[in-house]
Amino acid sequence: MSQAILSTPRADGFYMPAEWAPHAGTWMLWPQRPDNWRFRGKPAQKAFSVVARVIRRFEPVTMGANPDQFAIARQILPSDVRVVELSNNDAWMRDCGPTFVVNGQGEVRLVNWQFNAWGGLYQDWSLDEMVPLKVAELEGLDYYNAPLILEGGSIHVDGEGTLLTTEQCLLNENRNPHLSRREIENYLREYTGAEKILWLGDGVYNDETDGHVDNLACFLRPGVVALTWTNDRNDPQYPISKDAYDRLKKFTDAKGRRLEVVKIHQPEPVLITQEEAAGVIPVEGTYPRNAGDRMAASYINFYFCNGGAVVPIFDDPHDQQALDVLQSALPERAVIGVPAREILLGGGNIHCITQQQPAG
Amino acid sequence: MSQAILSTPRADGFYMPAEWAPHAGTWMLWPQRPDNWRFRGKPAQKAFSVVARVIRRFEPVTMGANPDQFAIARQILPSDVRVVELSNNDAWMRDCGPTFVVNGQGEVRLVNWQFNAWGGLYQDWSLDEMVPLKVAELEGLDYYNAPLILEGGSIHVDGEGTLLTTEQCLLNENRNPHLSRREIENYLREYTGAEKILWLGDGVYNDETDGHVDNLACFLRPGVVALTWTNDRNDPQYPISKDAYDRLKKFTDAKGRRLEVVKIHQPEPVLITQEEAAGVIPVEGTYPRNAGDRMAASYINFYFCNGGAVVPIFDDPHDQQALDVLQSALPERAVIGVPAREILLGGGNIHCITQQQPAG
Repeated sequence: MSQAILSTPRADGFYMPAEWAPHAGTWMLWPQRPDNWRFRGKPAQKAFSVVARVIRRFEPVTMGANPDQFAIARQILPSDVRVVELSNNDAWMRDCGPTFVVNGQGEVRLVNWQFNAWGGLYQDWSLDEMVPLKVAELEGLDYYNAPLILEGGSIHVDGEGTLLTTEQCLLNENRNPHLSRREIENYLREYTGAEKILWLGDGVYNDETDGHVDNLACFLRPGVVALTWTNDRNDPQYPISKDAYDRLKKFTDAKGRRLEVVKIHQPEPVLITQEEAAGVIPVEGTYPRNAGDRMAASYINFYFCNGGAVVPIFDDPHDQQALDVLQSALPERAVIGVPAREILLGGGNIHCITQQQPAG
Repeated sequence: MSQAILSTPRADGFYMPAEWAPHAGTWMLWPQRPDNWRFRGKPAQKAFSVVARVIRRFEPVTMGANPDQFAIARQILPSDVRVVELSNNDAWMRDCGPTFVVNGQGEVRLVNWQFNAWGGLYQDWSLDEMVPLKVAELEGLDYYNAPLILEGGSIHVDGEGTLLTTEQCLLNENRNPHLSRREIENYLREYTGAEKILWLGDGVYNDETDGHVDNLACFLRPGVVALTWTNDRNDPQYPISKDAYDRLKKFTDAKGRRLEVVKIHQPEPVLITQEEAAGVIPVEGTYPRNAGDRMAASYINFYFCNGGAVVPIFDDPHDQQALDVLQSALPERAVIGVPAREILLGGGNIHCITQQQPAG
């Protein structure tokens, strides 16, 4: 039902649409690994379920689960969320999943990027790297194999030719050390259809993904970018956000527009508690979860779905402000905050655990 | 996407259609277990692939595979066969899979029978028993949980109210010992929509399924039944087929018709060779494969697909006769023989490894 295509999306007139373009549905993966999620993933499973339930108000949701967790996922999730077997090493559908591309004439294909678990945050990613192909089979979609190690969370597009990314991640020597910036740009253009690549510098402070853009900044619509921000000049995030802001204000996008930047103040630093760290069963070779470590909390890690925006909140004084700013920037959408500390404890957030499949 | 329905198919106007009614497609499972299939399933995988390829000429085919075999299945199968993760203990989709039911108004649901690996031919069937639910999820179909241990291969229907089965299997104490014949009939009526249950006696000689009807006899159309036969009165199959013939000639079906019986002469006895037995890695508790054991070879174990009938052949002098008889009984179909000794060595045949999903 599904075939590898030897050309590229660009050559065939396909491109990655903006996340806010209409979705056929959302893909997610079920968390379980005990060396990353505390208490063998039980609290994270509840948090993921809430995310799935909220997205389901707007569009179909498919949850992929490992075989040993299928029955548990089926039991916990509402019955209108589809559960399928989709073996994985961890639950980051944004990053190990495919990038869907469209041709504007009803056809959908997908890009199967290479994957190395963010430069090796755990030691075996053999199941993760099969996820895009399995999604292609499940949906009967043809796919392109991109010869580039790339996670979905490391790029954002405006759907009008502009791609936003970070140097910290895409130029990191643990991803594609044999490729120059120019070569990486060429691959991005070929496989996403973007015309212009906008490079930010570092990602969010202490982000274990090596600075994925999807935690730092995202398009709200063409010409408008939201940026995580802090007014505290002593916070290590300050110079990062300031640099990103300065770059954004200098850019023009693929259409020649200057960018409007919407600052969204970050939550107070989220530190792993003793209790939270104690719930993780450490394994040599897996990125550790130590008490006191600062997590890369950001409201930017939200997810567009059909008519909605699902935003991580942290029981933080800045939550309401973030929701208000986003609601006012996205007046046509229902902006919904979902408690996300439990997801953050695994190293990412709502955007990282979702992947949109655009409508055909 | 998929919900358990607490009523029964009969109560909701649903019934199991005849196998020759139009299919949406065919479900199969990928063989691998080394204690049942010789050489870790490699020859069987080739044989299953040929079956999938032939059926694919007529209708879509989905192959379910365990996660560790997904890439291998994907590589061996033609690209127009869909491969999905569908964890299983062995590859008998007919028996562990769902029975699909329709309401004649475009709706399709499925029946999730209970399963105990044919009374325990192996010791762990925990994955097999999840297969119907997972198919329901994959297809977004609602399902009925039937409180009856039953394999799909133990029943045949004519789609007009008649169900054919065997006493050896359905009344076996290793299936539903707490239920009487009358109670089992009632469940069959409720969950398949059949009106009249026709009981044959024993199944094919030495059939490890405890005499599944799908190896002994099947409907060719309403009012016409094909029956495996032998003219050799010294063959242990003779009295079995003779008894079935006598019963069939006495029955009337749900519409009051007398049955025409088409005899199909069985192949010569198929005995496991030394070499074939040596390729199996025996495990205590799994049904053994010993050199010299007679397999339950039968042409009846064929499969209807849209416009076709896929028939097991055995490099046997009776092959051509069986194909000719079936072709003449099914003039509107392409009757195709597929070499099936390798499938038979695992304990079943083409009908046992397929499950039709009717069109809506």
